[in-house]
Amino acid sequence: MNVKITEDFWKNYRNLVRKEMIPYQWNVLNDIGGINIERERADDTIPNEKSHAIENFKIAAGRTKGEFYGYVFQDSDVYKWLEAAAYVLREDDDEDLRKKADDIVDLIAEAQQPDGYLDTYFIIKEPERKFMTLRESHELYCAGHFFEAACAYYAVTGNKKVLDTAIRLADCIDRHFGAEEGKLHGSDGHPEVEIGLMKLYAVTGEKRYLRLCEYFIGVRGECHKFFAEQDEAEKGMTPIFEGMRHADDTYFQIQEAPVKQSTAEGHAVRQIYLCTAMADLAREDGDEELAEACRRIWRNIVDRRMYITGGIGSTVNGEAFTLDYDLPNDTMYCETCASVGLIFFAKNMLKLEAKGEYADVMERALYNTVLAGMALDGRHFFYVNPLEVDPEQSRKNPTKSHVKAVRPEWLACACCPPNLARMLASVDDYIYMEKDGEIFVNLYIASEAEFSINGEKIKIKLETDYPKSGSVKLKVEKNGYKVVNLALRVPGWADNVYGQIDGAEEKVAQEDGYWHVYAEDKQTEISLNMPMYVERNYADTRVSADVGKVCISRGPLVYCAESVDNGEALQNIELLENAVFKENFEPELLNGVISVRTEGKRIVERGNGQLYTHKKMYDIEGQSIKLIPYYAWGNRGENEMRVWLREH
Amino acid sequence: MNVKITEDFWKNYRNLVRKEMIPYQWNVLNDIGGINIERERADDTIPNEKSHAIENFKIAAGRTKGEFYGYVFQDSDVYKWLEAAAYVLREDDDEDLRKKADDIVDLIAEAQQPDGYLDTYFIIKEPERKFMTLRESHELYCAGHFFEAACAYYAVTGNKKVLDTAIRLADCIDRHFGAEEGKLHGSDGHPEVEIGLMKLYAVTGEKRYLRLCEYFIGVRGECHKFFAEQDEAEKGMTPIFEGMRHADDTYFQIQEAPVKQSTAEGHAVRQIYLCTAMADLAREDGDEELAEACRRIWRNIVDRRMYITGGIGSTVNGEAFTLDYDLPNDTMYCETCASVGLIFFAKNMLKLEAKGEYADVMERALYNTVLAGMALDGRHFFYVNPLEVDPEQSRKNPTKSHVKAVRPEWLACACCPPNLARMLASVDDYIYMEKDGEIFVNLYIASEAEFSINGEKIKIKLETDYPKSGSVKLKVEKNGYKVVNLALRVPGWADNVYGQIDGAEEKVAQEDGYWHVYAEDKQTEISLNMPMYVERNYADTRVSADVGKVCISRGPLVYCAESVDNGEALQNIELLENAVFKENFEPELLNGVISVRTEGKRIVERGNGQLYTHKKMYDIEGQSIKLIPYYAWGNRGENEMRVWLREH
Repeated sequence: MNVKITEDFWKNYRNLVRKEMIPYQWNVLNDIGGINIERERADDTIPNEKSHAIENFKIAAGRTKGEFYGYVFQDSDVYKWLEAAAYVLREDDDEDLRKKADDIVDLIAEAQQPDGYLDTYFIIKEPERKFMTLRESHELYCAGHFFEAACAYYAVTGNKKVLDTAIRLADCIDRHFGAEEGKLHGSDGHPEVEIGLMKLYAVTGEKRYLRLCEYFIGVRGECHKFFAEQDEAEKGMTPIFEGMRHADDTYFQIQEAPVKQSTAEGHAVRQIYLCTAMADLAREDGDEELAEACRRIWRNIVDRRMYITGGIGSTVNGEAFTLDYDLPNDTMYCETCASVGLIFFAKNMLKLEAKGEYADVMERALYNTVLAGMALDGRHFFYVNPLEVDPEQSRKNPTKSHVKAVRPEWLACACCPPNLARMLASVDDYIYMEKDGEIFVNLYIASEAEFSINGEKIKIKLETDYPKSGSVKLKVEKNGYKVVNLALRVPGWADNVYGQIDGAEEKVAQEDGYWHVYAEDKQTEISLNMPMYVERNYADTRVSADVGKVCISRGPLVYCAESVDNGEALQNIELLENAVFKENFEPELLNGVISVRTEGKRIVERGNGQLYTHKKMYDIEGQSIKLIPYYAWGNRGENEMRVWLREH
Repeated sequence: MNVKITEDFWKNYRNLVRKEMIPYQWNVLNDIGGINIERERADDTIPNEKSHAIENFKIAAGRTKGEFYGYVFQDSDVYKWLEAAAYVLREDDDEDLRKKADDIVDLIAEAQQPDGYLDTYFIIKEPERKFMTLRESHELYCAGHFFEAACAYYAVTGNKKVLDTAIRLADCIDRHFGAEEGKLHGSDGHPEVEIGLMKLYAVTGEKRYLRLCEYFIGVRGECHKFFAEQDEAEKGMTPIFEGMRHADDTYFQIQEAPVKQSTAEGHAVRQIYLCTAMADLAREDGDEELAEACRRIWRNIVDRRMYITGGIGSTVNGEAFTLDYDLPNDTMYCETCASVGLIFFAKNMLKLEAKGEYADVMERALYNTVLAGMALDGRHFFYVNPLEVDPEQSRKNPTKSHVKAVRPEWLACACCPPNLARMLASVDDYIYMEKDGEIFVNLYIASEAEFSINGEKIKIKLETDYPKSGSVKLKVEKNGYKVVNLALRVPGWADNVYGQIDGAEEKVAQEDGYWHVYAEDKQTEISLNMPMYVERNYADTRVSADVGKVCISRGPLVYCAESVDNGEALQNIELLENAVFKENFEPELLNGVISVRTEGKRIVERGNGQLYTHKKMYDIEGQSIKLIPYYAWGNRGENEMRVWLREH
């Protein structure tokens, strides 16, 4: 499968990755130039004047002398950059970037120890504590990110050294961890190595990596004991990650065996990374029990613990899931990385079983929270993606201090921007899926793709201006005689869908969220029309934060109100139950968006200054309300924003 | 002025103080019996299996050997107990209690150092750091509580030793602190000594204490420098109070000179204690500039930063004020101590200038948040007083972990229960006020009082079953010839008020919230009728948490809904705009309350399990709604509670 994106909406984002994020992050990782690194939490005690990530590798490689500096998981920033660079190079082989990436590979290989071990913190600072503090060390977490980067970079460039380095590291881990006597019987406090091992297995075909992934997932239910033993052995020593030891079991995803799990718990990114690997392993092994666990957790997230924006994680404390229907709009976490992870999980669920709803959630997370994670300039990033923000409250109420109203330039704990970069740079991987000889179209992104199925070449040209409209045209070309089976996703948000094949109207019969069609002729033209209306959305009334409120969407895009368009005090804006909405494409607004306008109401205070009165001290006046896509909020300076508005 | 409460509502609370709180707290302070001391915060690292407060004094006095144990401000628990005991003894001189209190006084005097210094932490544990760590040490804070206790106990019992001990301590502090060269130029991180010094001045007439209070208030604007110097000198030493050093200036009330302040900032208890002393000093000194500051801060609290329950402090982080109109109902703090402090502040504002609105707030805080701070059994206490709680959310969402749905038996940081005890035991001090020859009636609590004004004896018998009804009768008896001037507060909540004097209808003319009347005859009977209706309350629409919501009150009592009466998911309950309310005295319910019933609505979920839908998936059905007084919530097991309900 070879995919080339041809449309502006995504090309723009990918250009930002290429022209802004990759060079910018390169500078950050290399401590070049002045960068305002912002603390994402007021109580953050990690120094953050610089990244030092590449410097750590240079010190570990013996090229320079110095001390390790930064978060213990800093290496992963370099790996994520390398992975993103690989995807960028896949699209356009830029010589300078290739050179930088090759140099990084050389540096990483140089830093690797003779036994394959690789983690600059422990190489430089505390070699005697290698694999001794798995609760906090992030050693396997970093390794997992390296495996992902290595597989991507090898696939694109054929660089053998990166793959060999990864194999040496994987073998080193395999020698140290496992059920066998003499090995360590535990896993990492932060799932990720499992994802990387599955990818390394896919590239190398080495079954040991598959089994090691299986081991790391299965052993989590027993990790409490393992961590407690490591804690005991480390007693009196300075923690690798101050304070983390006091987090509860769900934070580390060790509260029970994942295969037994029914609800999404604890640290959202860790949970969702774990699920990503579980779904992949369940498919590879045909493990129906594990697949059931994945389905249960999926249902729990999607039916009870996910924001309408595809955000997950209802509290900043532990960056965690909380309980069913607990979805506060103003104190939540909704980390960008967690929604990136939700897309990974959805993709692997799709590979496990082609059901359109997985792609629906993928689309929801991608077009809303993930895109919102980055400013339109590609240089500012949200870690936390609120559904409601008042900048004054964020400044002055510490319960909301993690909720920023404007994207900071960079973040001390820099997991989100590189995660965004690799997501956006590889979005072409999420459009199509080959499964059992059928081509599934999951995302409607204008593109040209080539497939080779059973030895036959198939070309698809997907034309659309989605998400502006829901009209999609697929031109399918093939040179063989076999029928090409295609499945076009019919999104959950779509209604009154109609299709055409070679100009003839076709009923869009849906099965598990797909319209299955086939192309017999050398050239077939398939159209799918999903009319995009402005839609109201209501939450299950068990979500107390959303009772009496409505959220507007159009196609896959969730809309929001900003005070720059609607005046301050957005709590006083009301949408009418019988509102008429006007859509208007505004090419100059926020890189070109369809704004939504309607006549609503505004509560206007007429009080005498008394805080509480027996009578209502306000008038209700008409107000023109303007809404913009959520992904584009916070790009016009600091202002209030709300996704859920009161309905009158 | 000599006041004796004669009615059941308050007698019951005072009996709880006498029969439950005082003996119970005595046991706690003495580590007698098994007590479930609960951590009020999940991240609390202070050990809390025992109090050790009296034991600390015994060690300091040399009676036993051992180590200091507990919070650094633990001494204040003993002082608050002594103060409460004094008020209890004033009402009924119980020999056993007097003996215990006298013994405590002996113990405190014995623990005092030859130079007058008194603080068991520093005497026992780190004598070399006396007065070296004022940001965290609470030395002057504890001293302030001792001054208050000493003044109260001396006034009731004439115990000279307690006053002498207080004077020696005050003189010691006076020698160490002040503007003069060689003295320490700063104050305590926690205001309180200022209140105590004003009381000590009132009892002794010693002007140095007045001036020292003035110094401690005035110097706060310069304390940042002072604290920074002390921090510097202490560099590398173990903090007295781990983590506190990182709190911001408003936490310590040192952000600016109090006389310049316009808004209530930082730690709510600290702010309100400071204001209490400021108002007292402004009155004593006739300092109009300071009085203006008090008025500004008062207005800011009452008009913009106070909950309808009289709770203050909008965030758990720093237990602090946040910003205007930021009054979230479910994540707030509303510490019991802060509302006790608000009553102190109100009382001193009344003494400064007799305006009924100060007493209105006093009444609001007392009858709602303060009473809610204690269970009806007198043995369980809230630290945090929410306006909305869902026990499941409190358990599983750490952002709300500080919000308890049931009162714990005791608290590790035991400031609230003893503060409640001294408040409830001295509520008779808040009923009447003599000012400029006039007798003000601020709270309507059935009582008998004797006054001596200009040498003439006046007796007042106040008859009422307030807050059940708003009918109040004052029987005024005097033996002299002078006219007795009286001022009866007409509460802000009251409407259609009418009065009688000796059976003749009188227009209730109001001036600054009072009805001024006079008694010429030997016996005069004055009636004030304040009809109590069930009233709706609406918040200023800038309070985003309360938009579209209504709160029900009756007289001074705020009402709330509990799920034990109304079923779960209180977010789905709606009060009707045109609701008819029925009041019903239920003698068996919660020690006898007037419950309020009305026919309202309930949203009933009819969804298919999908979290978000384009159509409303619920029905609206009729539901009988029952409300109870807020002060009595949480006494029928764990359940949901809401003060602000959605209005339909």
